[in-house]
Amino acid sequence: MQILVVGSVALDTIRTPFGEAEEVLGGSATYFSLAASLFGRVGVVAVVGEDFPRRYIDLLSSRGVDLEGLQVVPGRTFRWKGYYDYDLNTAHTLETQLNVFQDFDPVLPGEYRDAEYVFLANIDPVLQRRVLEQVRGPRVVVCDTMNFWIENRREELLETISRVDILVLNDAEARQLAGHPNLVVAGRKLLELGPSRVVIKKGEHGVIMLSDGTFFSLPAYPCEEVFDPTGAGDSFGGGFVGYMAKSGDLREETMRRAVVYGSVVASCTVEAFSCERLKDLTMEEVEERFSRFMEMTCFTRD
Amino acid sequence: MQILVVGSVALDTIRTPFGEAEEVLGGSATYFSLAASLFGRVGVVAVVGEDFPRRYIDLLSSRGVDLEGLQVVPGRTFRWKGYYDYDLNTAHTLETQLNVFQDFDPVLPGEYRDAEYVFLANIDPVLQRRVLEQVRGPRVVVCDTMNFWIENRREELLETISRVDILVLNDAEARQLAGHPNLVVAGRKLLELGPSRVVIKKGEHGVIMLSDGTFFSLPAYPCEEVFDPTGAGDSFGGGFVGYMAKSGDLREETMRRAVVYGSVVASCTVEAFSCERLKDLTMEEVEERFSRFMEMTCFTRD
Repeated sequence: MQILVVGSVALDTIRTPFGEAEEVLGGSATYFSLAASLFGRVGVVAVVGEDFPRRYIDLLSSRGVDLEGLQVVPGRTFRWKGYYDYDLNTAHTLETQLNVFQDFDPVLPGEYRDAEYVFLANIDPVLQRRVLEQVRGPRVVVCDTMNFWIENRREELLETISRVDILVLNDAEARQLAGHPNLVVAGRKLLELGPSRVVIKKGEHGVIMLSDGTFFSLPAYPCEEVFDPTGAGDSFGGGFVGYMAKSGDLREETMRRAVVYGSVVASCTVEAFSCERLKDLTMEEVEERFSRFMEMTCFTRD
Repeated sequence: MQILVVGSVALDTIRTPFGEAEEVLGGSATYFSLAASLFGRVGVVAVVGEDFPRRYIDLLSSRGVDLEGLQVVPGRTFRWKGYYDYDLNTAHTLETQLNVFQDFDPVLPGEYRDAEYVFLANIDPVLQRRVLEQVRGPRVVVCDTMNFWIENRREELLETISRVDILVLNDAEARQLAGHPNLVVAGRKLLELGPSRVVIKKGEHGVIMLSDGTFFSLPAYPCEEVFDPTGAGDSFGGGFVGYMAKSGDLREETMRRAVVYGSVVASCTVEAFSCERLKDLTMEEVEERFSRFMEMTCFTRD
């Protein structure tokens, strides 16, 4: 397996100012794998209940996502219910039902253990580490996290972060974890925790990426119609890691391009509810948007 | 006169989490002219009271700013008192003393009437128009504004905007004036008001610039130490218009470069209180930061 993701596969009930959707396909591993599958072969390590709709399995399979690592166990699938106000940057959680996710023990099928690119989506840092213990010699490990783990599992999270290559998180989380209000300073402090790169997602304000001696700043792709921001961050991760895997090298220019591809895929995701846009997104559309994005951000010296 | 600015010259009392400054040089025309004077010859149309310190006049003159249009009248100079919290994006006003600004009637000295580039800083839209009536045939008129005029002088403001070439405002103002939460859509709606270009300043999140058929998005220059955001927007305006005047053409690539120069000068301004950083900023430093900025934002196709 080229790319491996561990995270959630969920049923989401979402309300935004533009509509609502009930029990639709969601979860970090879902968005990541749909995005990454545009670029390479992805295997999913996650758990669902016996109630998980067959059509969603088919959807993932139809996009080439490998589901050997998706455990189907007795009980109900993880559910998330939330809404967004006109400030589409903040998800307000109404209800989280962990259900079968409560006892999730990630077990990697044999073929997954040789994964070159590993994405630890936003789950308990102890579970993230359990995945790391099972992979043999990954080329790159990328880790996402969220405020809940920063607040409630700080030590475990720091332990996990010290073992990964790239830390991906959003701006509020970066400030919180680093304990500094300035994002550039926060990014530098996060590099001291171990990763060789830190990628900070700023939603509609773009992304910054830092390593020792490099700094990259990209605005967001300008979306005129954001219907549902759910999954934007994980789609970013999928495009980011997917392109990295496809290109096969880790030079600064490749990593920057990976950030742009991540941003492009995320900008598509938010144009429709759930995975509606991702489920038939083509690489042609992605390339076209990449070109337009480049045109919209480039400037020259005279 | 190559560049003309009408706006305020003020005495500011500012508190930020990093210190405070009392009765220091401020005002939109001050910041604009100090920034623009790096690129060309600027004349200021403004008013101060007899209490305005001689050393501030000397400071402006020492930077080549022409003060023939600065009226000195009996009474006290315009004063602004405000503070910033750790969220340095929002200025909280504690006190505004209009003083001599209350009866300000902008009168252009003869040489100013031939100005090629006119910047109408954020003042009453009726006064902005009075300046327009006095200039003979400006090449470009750029107009700034703020929430107070949008709320209290909407019709007058729309009348002024219909007569300018470029509208510059911040993101909250753009949303408010256009009546749309999405900034891209808001920008398009503002173009319908008359200007051929709209530049939206997003503070620490950068700038977008739109015209019919073009879109440019630039992140902010990453500042690690923001001491005082006062004047960032007007310094941006000074760098923006200054470069435009210096280059002498209005092609898209020139306008983009102008946005970058504006951002670079603004990023310097906020590194110190009041005009401390601007007062001895050199074009060499600006060029060096332009190059670094370019390096931090560029990406390529493979």
